[in-house]
Amino acid sequence: MHCPDQPGIIAVITEFINTNGGNILYLDQYVDRENGVFYMRVEWDLENFVIPADKIEEYFNTLYASRYNVTYRLSFTDRPRRMALFVSKMSHCLYDILARYVAGEWDVEIPVIISNHPDLKSVADQFNIPYEVIPVTRQNKEEMEALEFEILDRYQIDFIVLARYMQVLSENFINRYPNRIINIHHSFLPAFVGAKPYHAAHDRGVKLIGATSHYVTTELDAGPIIEQDIVRITHKDTINDLVKKGRDLEKIVLSRAVEKHIQRKILTYNNKTVVFS
Amino acid sequence: MHCPDQPGIIAVITEFINTNGGNILYLDQYVDRENGVFYMRVEWDLENFVIPADKIEEYFNTLYASRYNVTYRLSFTDRPRRMALFVSKMSHCLYDILARYVAGEWDVEIPVIISNHPDLKSVADQFNIPYEVIPVTRQNKEEMEALEFEILDRYQIDFIVLARYMQVLSENFINRYPNRIINIHHSFLPAFVGAKPYHAAHDRGVKLIGATSHYVTTELDAGPIIEQDIVRITHKDTINDLVKKGRDLEKIVLSRAVEKHIQRKILTYNNKTVVFS
Amino acid sequence: MHCPDQPGIIAVITEFINTNGGNILYLDQYVDRENGVFYMRVEWDLENFVIPADKIEEYFNTLYASRYNVTYRLSFTDRPRRMALFVSKMSHCLYDILARYVAGEWDVEIPVIISNHPDLKSVADQFNIPYEVIPVTRQNKEEMEALEFEILDRYQIDFIVLARYMQVLSENFINRYPNRIINIHHSFLPAFVGAKPYHAAHDRGVKLIGATSHYVTTELDAGPIIEQDIVRITHKDTINDLVKKGRDLEKIVLSRAVEKHIQRKILTYNNKTVVFS
Amino acid sequence: MHCPDQPGIIAVITEFINTNGGNILYLDQYVDRENGVFYMRVEWDLENFVIPADKIEEYFNTLYASRYNVTYRLSFTDRPRRMALFVSKMSHCLYDILARYVAGEWDVEIPVIISNHPDLKSVADQFNIPYEVIPVTRQNKEEMEALEFEILDRYQIDFIVLARYMQVLSENFINRYPNRIINIHHSFLPAFVGAKPYHAAHDRGVKLIGATSHYVTTELDAGPIIEQDIVRITHKDTINDLVKKGRDLEKIVLSRAVEKHIQRKILTYNNKTVVFS
Repeated sequence: MHCPDQPGIIAVITEFINTNGGNILYLDQYVDRENGVFYMRVEWDLENFVIPADKIEEYFNTLYASRYNVTYRLSFTDRPRRMALFVSKMSHCLYDILARYVAGEWDVEIPVIISNHPDLKSVADQFNIPYEVIPVTRQNKEEMEALEFEILDRYQIDFIVLARYMQVLSENFINRYPNRIINIHHSFLPAFVGAKPYHAAHDRGVKLIGATSHYVTTELDAGPIIEQDIVRITHKDTINDLVKKGRDLEKIVLSRAVEKHIQRKILTYNNKTVVFS
Repeated sequence: MHCPDQPGIIAVITEFINTNGGNILYLDQYVDRENGVFYMRVEWDLENFVIPADKIEEYFNTLYASRYNVTYRLSFTDRPRRMALFVSKMSHCLYDILARYVAGEWDVEIPVIISNHPDLKSVADQFNIPYEVIPVTRQNKEEMEALEFEILDRYQIDFIVLARYMQVLSENFINRYPNRIINIHHSFLPAFVGAKPYHAAHDRGVKLIGATSHYVTTELDAGPIIEQDIVRITHKDTINDLVKKGRDLEKIVLSRAVEKHIQRKILTYNNKTVVFS
Repeated sequence: MHCPDQPGIIAVITEFINTNGGNILYLDQYVDRENGVFYMRVEWDLENFVIPADKIEEYFNTLYASRYNVTYRLSFTDRPRRMALFVSKMSHCLYDILARYVAGEWDVEIPVIISNHPDLKSVADQFNIPYEVIPVTRQNKEEMEALEFEILDRYQIDFIVLARYMQVLSENFINRYPNRIINIHHSFLPAFVGAKPYHAAHDRGVKLIGATSHYVTTELDAGPIIEQDIVRITHKDTINDLVKKGRDLEKIVLSRAVEKHIQRKILTYNNKTVVFS
Repeated sequence: MHCPDQPGIIAVITEFINTNGGNILYLDQYVDRENGVFYMRVEWDLENFVIPADKIEEYFNTLYASRYNVTYRLSFTDRPRRMALFVSKMSHCLYDILARYVAGEWDVEIPVIISNHPDLKSVADQFNIPYEVIPVTRQNKEEMEALEFEILDRYQIDFIVLARYMQVLSENFINRYPNRIINIHHSFLPAFVGAKPYHAAHDRGVKLIGATSHYVTTELDAGPIIEQDIVRITHKDTINDLVKKGRDLEKIVLSRAVEKHIQRKILTYNNKTVVFS
């Protein structure tokens, strides 16, 4: 939740939960004093909570939300969210995500993998996940995305992870999944926006390369940043070395971002993220 | 403050402040669910607070502390704390701290520098800070520390920073300043406890060297860790290179720890620290 | 190669290659001036080299090795080395290695996976690699290791990677593969040697956790360190959080070490490694 | 030195030194195979070298430089280089450099500090270094830079360090000191070129901030990068926090770059640097 900062707001919300029999399992809050905004993430046990799960929104709206001008999202941890993976030809992010998935690291379902190329079908097969090839190009994008929407709806997908997917999504697609499409870009944004960032980094002679995971918005590589990291390089590293070192960075940075999203620990505001610990 | 975790504790404390006219400027809390301990740091403006500053402890004790079994420390930011620096012969940490001090980075007073050697008097002179040489050795420690206590009392010192001070303090000394003596050890503790950690690191062939800032307790290099960091080394680095790379690490790690202490953002519990952001 | 440092040694070796028609593709050298040792790794193209591949050792020995007291290892990149993986129950390092393997990142063969538990057979099956269960215990170690030797010989294994293998190898086993068994230990060695390092790290209240990849020697966790890295933690992290953060560290650190080994870029001397870039 | 890569070049150069009685103290080389360029830095003892110091250039030119098309720079370590510091109002980089200077960490002379503001005269006084105030503005730049040239010549300055100097130098100034003006920019270039990078970083919501030290060229913030580093930030950090965290980064990154320059370990080529270890 976030709302205008106001005295006692934290007490109001925690009292609401405690008084009604909820046991708080997690609470993290943060006040942006510059802009006067209060952010909080709170998680509680419903076992003895007197308000039925399907009435919480109604009660909270009536009693608090409009009064304190609260924007919030309520979610229940008993239903894992459903994630679709979009890939092209590179397997490192895909394997990293699927290895965590089958090891049970994440509370998520991955019912489908979508690709514009057939190359990674063998990986999907290894993990027994349906793999849909939608050969989207600049020319046929509208038509192909319609096919993708059909697949995403059929599998009841909640959010999408672009695991080195090498196609730009249309505005229409992006607006269908606001703050629900996670991309990995292989540079420390805002440096090296767009295509071939490792080439650009090599040309510029930087001493660090980076990777950035962000929510996709209609402006290319300009959405809210979730996570970034870098690795040190030297003059000895060729472009191939950057690509190689970058792979480890990309997969770890993307997986950290996806995990935070799955844990519902990311709050987006003003094209930035609040990432709770 | 810390206390046994209990439903509503955060509401109780924030209500106490809000109801009595306090404007909360900072709040950070954390629950150690494993041990059932609630930790919180809260800072508020006294301007319209109805309880007089010198009565806050009394009121808080009566109304809350014993009832909720709260251990707390109350401090007022209008009186800067007074810090003594202990040094030997190396100047890098000393300069780093004094440069921040004269630039006004920290809300602290440094009325005196104490050393077992005369070498760094010129640095103290540059900054017009009294420099007391107390040539302590293993043999004369009790007597020399008595002199130090006299100096520390005369200057009304609140806490002590050992800025690469190469003498072990007595138990008596340490017990006089519990959680108020900050040391920098030039290894990533608990590796390489004791003397000559860079030599030991070189012998072992590690690929990282570290520095650790901690509160001093009576067990050598075993007090609560406040901050640590590392720097990468290679087989090419000689012991001298480690010493050189280590200097930058030591001064930054020590200064980060000192800053957190000055900001009263460190809470010590079970020989560990909670460091608020 | 390494040898006592002596004037002109670099010229001697490079002349040997150039004069005989070899085209140098890679050269890195380093002089340990403290101990007077010269280390070099040089790679050249055999296409126009006048000495036949199977005679290079003989010629080099006769002409240079004894004269300059050179210890060296000659290897040919046209035969990929053969690596056996030893695992127990955790899959993160295994997946990370196999994902690189099938993506063709490494010039290596992985003909067999050996485990003391059946748990990860499904992973081996995904990648169509034979999985041998050898239920070794303290009691039956000699007998079980004999079975392992038979398997390792049958598959002509050159080196072994312990990818979170939770059994201590016997001296006999270790001596059979000097500098050819790579382990990952989940701490920044020499801190937290032995079992349960994350528990020990949590107890000590460190602010960083680490992982160390090293060659296995007969002294536990004391072999030559190949690669280390760390990740920052806070007081908020439970032991489970450390385990989770550690997994990403372990797999990356282990894979970096394995890659250097595959590339024949590690030279071991005095229980330390020289790792060429 | 750098030259087109060619078989035997390393043997040729090392033979030249060895044959003539030079004892090599340091050698590092690197081949850019993409562009076919050989880079080397070699340092030797002149004690028994048969060619007189003032004839080395002549002999090397005649015998090797034109034949192998070598571009090189010869320097003698017995004459420390002379560095001028340019500062404005912030003291952190200045103190960091001067603390190293008086501790004898660097083989350099700092005969003068130049500023466009009087603010830091007290720091210069602490270290007994002349402090010249040249109140340069956009309008009077030509005239004021003429004064600066006079000072720089008078003090026989070899290179210039802009230690958070907040004025853009003219083309004329820059061309007078090619690859001899070192700047620190408070972002990970090429992100956030120009003024107020911390504000821009805060607006963009990045999760890392950086600092970059580079040689100044006539294109703003686009010169060869010598060193970069980053520090992690979170949504909790205000612009002031970024400024504060950035200070530690800036001073360390600048000092690392200055040290490499003093050690003559930086070679510039194609607007990039080769930084020898």
